[in-house]
Amino acid sequence: MKKENCGLVGIYNHPEAARMAYFGLYALQHRGQESAGIVTWDGSKLREQRGMGLVADVFSERHLGHELKGGNAIGHIRYSTTGASLLRNAQPFMVHFRDLRLAIGHNGNLLNTVALRRELEQEGSLFQTSMDSEIFMHLVAKNCNGVSIEEAVAKACARVQGAYSLLIQANEKIIGVRDPWGFRPLVIGRVGATTVLASETCALDLLEAEYIREVEPGEMIVLDKGKMQSRQAVPQEKRKPCIFELIYFARPDSVVFGEEVYARRKNMGRVLAEEAPVDADFCMPFPDSGVYAALGFAQESGLPFEMAMIRNHYVGRTFIQPSQDMRDFGVRVKLNPVKGMIKGKKIVIIEDSIVRGTTIRTRMKKLRELGAKELHLRVSCPPICNPCYYGIDFSSKGELIAANYSVSDIARFIGLDSLHYLSLDGLMEAVGADQGYCRACFDGEYPELPPEGCGKACLET
Amino acid sequence: MKKENCGLVGIYNHPEAARMAYFGLYALQHRGQESAGIVTWDGSKLREQRGMGLVADVFSERHLGHELKGGNAIGHIRYSTTGASLLRNAQPFMVHFRDLRLAIGHNGNLLNTVALRRELEQEGSLFQTSMDSEIFMHLVAKNCNGVSIEEAVAKACARVQGAYSLLIQANEKIIGVRDPWGFRPLVIGRVGATTVLASETCALDLLEAEYIREVEPGEMIVLDKGKMQSRQAVPQEKRKPCIFELIYFARPDSVVFGEEVYARRKNMGRVLAEEAPVDADFCMPFPDSGVYAALGFAQESGLPFEMAMIRNHYVGRTFIQPSQDMRDFGVRVKLNPVKGMIKGKKIVIIEDSIVRGTTIRTRMKKLRELGAKELHLRVSCPPICNPCYYGIDFSSKGELIAANYSVSDIARFIGLDSLHYLSLDGLMEAVGADQGYCRACFDGEYPELPPEGCGKACLET
Amino acid sequence: MKKENCGLVGIYNHPEAARMAYFGLYALQHRGQESAGIVTWDGSKLREQRGMGLVADVFSERHLGHELKGGNAIGHIRYSTTGASLLRNAQPFMVHFRDLRLAIGHNGNLLNTVALRRELEQEGSLFQTSMDSEIFMHLVAKNCNGVSIEEAVAKACARVQGAYSLLIQANEKIIGVRDPWGFRPLVIGRVGATTVLASETCALDLLEAEYIREVEPGEMIVLDKGKMQSRQAVPQEKRKPCIFELIYFARPDSVVFGEEVYARRKNMGRVLAEEAPVDADFCMPFPDSGVYAALGFAQESGLPFEMAMIRNHYVGRTFIQPSQDMRDFGVRVKLNPVKGMIKGKKIVIIEDSIVRGTTIRTRMKKLRELGAKELHLRVSCPPICNPCYYGIDFSSKGELIAANYSVSDIARFIGLDSLHYLSLDGLMEAVGADQGYCRACFDGEYPELPPEGCGKACLET
Amino acid sequence: MKKENCGLVGIYNHPEAARMAYFGLYALQHRGQESAGIVTWDGSKLREQRGMGLVADVFSERHLGHELKGGNAIGHIRYSTTGASLLRNAQPFMVHFRDLRLAIGHNGNLLNTVALRRELEQEGSLFQTSMDSEIFMHLVAKNCNGVSIEEAVAKACARVQGAYSLLIQANEKIIGVRDPWGFRPLVIGRVGATTVLASETCALDLLEAEYIREVEPGEMIVLDKGKMQSRQAVPQEKRKPCIFELIYFARPDSVVFGEEVYARRKNMGRVLAEEAPVDADFCMPFPDSGVYAALGFAQESGLPFEMAMIRNHYVGRTFIQPSQDMRDFGVRVKLNPVKGMIKGKKIVIIEDSIVRGTTIRTRMKKLRELGAKELHLRVSCPPICNPCYYGIDFSSKGELIAANYSVSDIARFIGLDSLHYLSLDGLMEAVGADQGYCRACFDGEYPELPPEGCGKACLET
Repeated sequence: MKKENCGLVGIYNHPEAARMAYFGLYALQHRGQESAGIVTWDGSKLREQRGMGLVADVFSERHLGHELKGGNAIGHIRYSTTGASLLRNAQPFMVHFRDLRLAIGHNGNLLNTVALRRELEQEGSLFQTSMDSEIFMHLVAKNCNGVSIEEAVAKACARVQGAYSLLIQANEKIIGVRDPWGFRPLVIGRVGATTVLASETCALDLLEAEYIREVEPGEMIVLDKGKMQSRQAVPQEKRKPCIFELIYFARPDSVVFGEEVYARRKNMGRVLAEEAPVDADFCMPFPDSGVYAALGFAQESGLPFEMAMIRNHYVGRTFIQPSQDMRDFGVRVKLNPVKGMIKGKKIVIIEDSIVRGTTIRTRMKKLRELGAKELHLRVSCPPICNPCYYGIDFSSKGELIAANYSVSDIARFIGLDSLHYLSLDGLMEAVGADQGYCRACFDGEYPELPPEGCGKACLET
Repeated sequence: MKKENCGLVGIYNHPEAARMAYFGLYALQHRGQESAGIVTWDGSKLREQRGMGLVADVFSERHLGHELKGGNAIGHIRYSTTGASLLRNAQPFMVHFRDLRLAIGHNGNLLNTVALRRELEQEGSLFQTSMDSEIFMHLVAKNCNGVSIEEAVAKACARVQGAYSLLIQANEKIIGVRDPWGFRPLVIGRVGATTVLASETCALDLLEAEYIREVEPGEMIVLDKGKMQSRQAVPQEKRKPCIFELIYFARPDSVVFGEEVYARRKNMGRVLAEEAPVDADFCMPFPDSGVYAALGFAQESGLPFEMAMIRNHYVGRTFIQPSQDMRDFGVRVKLNPVKGMIKGKKIVIIEDSIVRGTTIRTRMKKLRELGAKELHLRVSCPPICNPCYYGIDFSSKGELIAANYSVSDIARFIGLDSLHYLSLDGLMEAVGADQGYCRACFDGEYPELPPEGCGKACLET
Repeated sequence: MKKENCGLVGIYNHPEAARMAYFGLYALQHRGQESAGIVTWDGSKLREQRGMGLVADVFSERHLGHELKGGNAIGHIRYSTTGASLLRNAQPFMVHFRDLRLAIGHNGNLLNTVALRRELEQEGSLFQTSMDSEIFMHLVAKNCNGVSIEEAVAKACARVQGAYSLLIQANEKIIGVRDPWGFRPLVIGRVGATTVLASETCALDLLEAEYIREVEPGEMIVLDKGKMQSRQAVPQEKRKPCIFELIYFARPDSVVFGEEVYARRKNMGRVLAEEAPVDADFCMPFPDSGVYAALGFAQESGLPFEMAMIRNHYVGRTFIQPSQDMRDFGVRVKLNPVKGMIKGKKIVIIEDSIVRGTTIRTRMKKLRELGAKELHLRVSCPPICNPCYYGIDFSSKGELIAANYSVSDIARFIGLDSLHYLSLDGLMEAVGADQGYCRACFDGEYPELPPEGCGKACLET
Repeated sequence: MKKENCGLVGIYNHPEAARMAYFGLYALQHRGQESAGIVTWDGSKLREQRGMGLVADVFSERHLGHELKGGNAIGHIRYSTTGASLLRNAQPFMVHFRDLRLAIGHNGNLLNTVALRRELEQEGSLFQTSMDSEIFMHLVAKNCNGVSIEEAVAKACARVQGAYSLLIQANEKIIGVRDPWGFRPLVIGRVGATTVLASETCALDLLEAEYIREVEPGEMIVLDKGKMQSRQAVPQEKRKPCIFELIYFARPDSVVFGEEVYARRKNMGRVLAEEAPVDADFCMPFPDSGVYAALGFAQESGLPFEMAMIRNHYVGRTFIQPSQDMRDFGVRVKLNPVKGMIKGKKIVIIEDSIVRGTTIRTRMKKLRELGAKELHLRVSCPPICNPCYYGIDFSSKGELIAANYSVSDIARFIGLDSLHYLSLDGLMEAVGADQGYCRACFDGEYPELPPEGCGKACLET
């Protein structure tokens, strides 16, 4: 199973729909940097532009002003996963089907894809990719005889398990759906006569659209004939929004699952300060992870807040290899400590999560070299001990440091004077009203499991 | 006169000199984003790679691993000025002269270029560019008869007025010089058997080089035959380092003119809090200007520090134009306020400088729309009332808002409840020991003036 | 219906199969310049590289030496048609199907695609392109239950009508098929242990492969387990090879349908000289069309052969527009007459075909301006009066000048002293043994017609 | 000394001068494929675009329609020499000098550059390149005090020795000069109110300009104030036009030194047929060298003319390396023999010159493999035994096969049944009236020799 976090935007009824979609993706770029694509309906057919890389690299004025004609558009950005990054897998994914031109963008991860694919192939369906969204499209096609496209999408939803927020362009219509658990976010906004669907509200802000509400778990939004209609695609399950969106994924200026991300992250820092106070000279984050939790930690603890690791804003995503005698270059080039701030100091560092622990270890070593007296790490979420089946690309269990080592072992490995993870109770306190969050990465309680016999690698291409 | 801030790095005696220079420029990228270049001496000739854009775009592994052979290198990055950005003007600038292959990189701005050029042309010198550094090279050539290249460089220095930190590659030698006032920075570092010259210490940090000392005003450093030698190029004047390097230009993790930039900027915020305290809910910077002064302001005032404007890290330097009904897009796309933090709040914003005031005005308007109750702006330097002749590209006097309006007028234009600029005395208190800083942009006391008859535009190409 | 001539190459059992396919396509570039693609089987999956433009532009050493691993490969180049040129339509076209990774390259044009597609969509098949080859692949998938891939391909062949030479990579196997009429060419060659399938023998020559024989109409060649096997895919019809391959498409150094193209084209010129001799000073072709017929004409008539129109070898396929007062630039830039040869001369020009007549008209006008005394045009095939349904992109009937005007009208339009087209009998004499050639473009006798209700534009995307 | 053949075009007084220059260079592309450049005068300064590669690659509509503004332009293309191909050496070469913006394009090779450069450097002149044209520009600058630019150019001409056709843009003026021997061509044309200077008349043809006359040896053409004026730059020497332009360099549709190239080349073939007739089945050229001599040979001898080597029109200038077992690929990919024409045949091949003999040897071997019975080579010029000092990049004497081996040795090396070079007398008969041609490459009689102590490599960079 390919795991990925992604970003979605749909623009309905705007004279420059592609341009709006472009800026929507721009605001959501933190959700994916591997590929980007926009599809528009020009009145008689779909037009597309997809490419590898950042939104700013994939689209030019020629695309937005000329080629991507039309008043409706959907856009997608994809997370940079390791392994083969292929243009073929860039979304939105397009197909022709009778009189319909269809395009789909998917955020999430389906669970029963192996069985579904086997069944579809048995009946002669051909596949061009290994993407979940192609399977979904085949299900739509199989269920389309004599029924509306909305009906066919609902029938397809009934067949798939797992996490999905979907946008579908079906000729002039745009359809948005969210899985019955509501794992991944999807919000509705409006600006003038234009309706916007997007993964996060930060996209609405940039488009100057007003935030209306979330798409509900299991709900289908249909934008057609100038209107927005809602119907239930599949019966809603117990709501299980992904708590990691609040901890890490969403942009701090977004409202996700109805919660203000900035305030929730500061709260995590506050509770952390209560749970594990330190006698130190100051606290600091590593930019830009941990900044907001660190603000909360500083305000609760009364410790001065500092930014003593300086980020190089011009570091791109690829490096020319340094010369042989430059160790740990990949880590050092991004952040450089302010020497004068470190020497002889007792420092609390706030991080938003630890996955493998190797980068942070390198940084602690550097701080020790510069004369730091004490190093205390405070992590604004509990230890990540379990893989995610719903769309986040954590390392496998074998690579998750917290799945294999005790907190004291980790502290020793990283080279810390003390280490504390926010407790699960503390996290729940910080996020406010319990929306029934999926916390499986922390506690292993999966709302829905992949069918047996479908190991992690079974569909890897 | 072309004004520009730039970055320099020289690597002497390293098997991969070009690669080291590349990473040095990488660390100095904040000093210039228009063009980048590296020249190496391969034992028999100079090799060069220059190009428009960021360091990461101009050089590839092919250049660093293959083409830019040699154990000595100099590199240069150039500030993005408005107007014609030509590859022809990218540095280092190379010439052949008898048995010498020469390359020069220049940070600063010369004052008497018109007269010098007229004189040189009278004698038949040909020019390929309008750069100060080409004039300098002609002066070297004219003074080279029967003397060493060091002597010729010294004679050239005696002819030019203004600001310069220079690196010259002369066959296998590297020569570094700083003007007699020491306007622009230049430091010496060492790692193993390698000597590094660089504009700021953050480049030394990335190269893991130890900071030795500054090149002194008027000093010439000669790297030759494996050794570093020092001589006086021109008699030292009263030391006049540019105070704006501490306020704005230098990276906060650098040590410039012997001062820790991070600590000095925090001090500016502290003094600002003393000079003009506010009763507010919190204080915040606009990332990334003003961050360090804001930390100082918060710590001195006891106000909470917040980061309630969120920076989009994926914004490139060029935009596709937004659609017509998206106002102020260029400003909004970079920073988005966290709505929940703004409404009904009294806010202090800390900025490091105001030049024209238009961007900040747009931002204040947005904060008002989101319901901010009071907006107080604190600026961590005095009003900029005078143009700079020594290499910083401020707008002309007509465009400098502080040169034309009173503080209260500016506050009204921007839409503030209060505005305070750090006083000149306060600034001097914040920077510590007085090194005789050039503060002409604030007080108009220019150490050296351009010759009469040389208006600002006289050499513009 | 998309009409296209294309080129195919298959390489079976060579350590550098992709590299061999690359050079095979290189030799076939005259058959298509729009796009190129190569697919290899790397032992566990297919690898592909496809792109718009010439073979030399689409592939780099990185592709051939590194990415396109594997001992078997198929390649395709596509004709440059007007209208939308999309990467999506570049071939080979790839799909996944159960344990099979399939890729297909197609030269030709199917007739019953509308009906087939309607039927397939009824059963829920999804389409990504409008290409005939995708329809073929769906038919293979539908017929694959419990039978071998060869059997499924044969069943698919039984369902389609029209012209096709196909190469299919099915995991490690390569399958080559030719339609039952044998419209388009496909030959078999061998070099060492490697089997080569290609559209023309010029590809075998470059690969130093020995020409074995043609794939027979209706024959399926299966390359598997190191061996070549032959079976009948569909019953052979009356053989109908496309005579236009001999007149125009094939490279003059190829052997096509067992005939030497060079010799056949010279024969056309010879017969033309017999049918319509002229008293002239010399005869000449327009490079490079008509060169070989002109050689035959000269040898038969005894007139001197000249090359008095000089081709600019550096003309690319796209032009920057000339300035307004430069008329007919697009025509003149390619060929410039040798003035001294034209003035006062009686000239016979030999062309291989006339489609719309506008380019040749411009050239004749230029020759008149330079003082040509008489201009006689001899065309080495009969008038083209009918569109082709089997893969050649003639203009529509409305644009074919010979379909709408008499020979004397055409002569007047072009500005000729005399015009003669080779007679159909003369053409048959020139090509030697009658292989039952399809001559429908000349005489309208179509071996197989598209189903009713399927106009030319019915499937245009 | 860098040796190079190049092409020049100057456009005076045309609203789209850059566009005209572009098409002029397009027509002259056969004279150089390494780099191209155009400079225009926009009324206040020079604008330039220079780049590596073909004319079609270096310029875009943006350059021609927007950036290269102005009514006057000069353009240059440079021959692809081996060794370092640097953008820095692309012409026109530009300098500033007092109120003058100067650009120069040079075709030819100067002889006394070492001494001139030494002298100029003694006086403090700086060099950016190793090009002859930069030295020329320094001489102009040195001689410019109190005199007109025309006078300064004349004084510079008096100082240099060797071959030069030059175009100089000096603000709004265009100046054209030819050396006193007239080694390299330069012609004058006119279309409407526009004056064109160009290396060959084929550029005039494309621009629809009328051929007026050659620039005379030693003449300076000044285009200024809407008029063309002529003056003597230096006293004319005995006229010594390069005979190799007629044999090889010029395009066959050009008139060079007043001679029609096409007719002269056919004559060379005719005389060759008289000097060394063969009893053969046919004669043929290797496209595209030798085509016109072969036409003359065929017409004189009565042998049939064939084109039995087929050129692949899509071969670019760089190749991906073939696989290891593909021998002589670089030769074979360009030309493929028509097998059916070769077997059992006695063949005469006509070539325009032999330099090293290795390529032709590979081709003969291939023809033998295909069963050629006899192979007779006829070369349309005498053996090349001496290097050229006037701008043609022959190999050094050591590499010139004819300088080191007898004709019979060469025949044996290449694998021929007979070999004949056109005699010098035969060549003179073929070219018609003796214009005093420089024939030094054949007979070693150099009109002017490089100063002593200046070996071939003395200025190589």
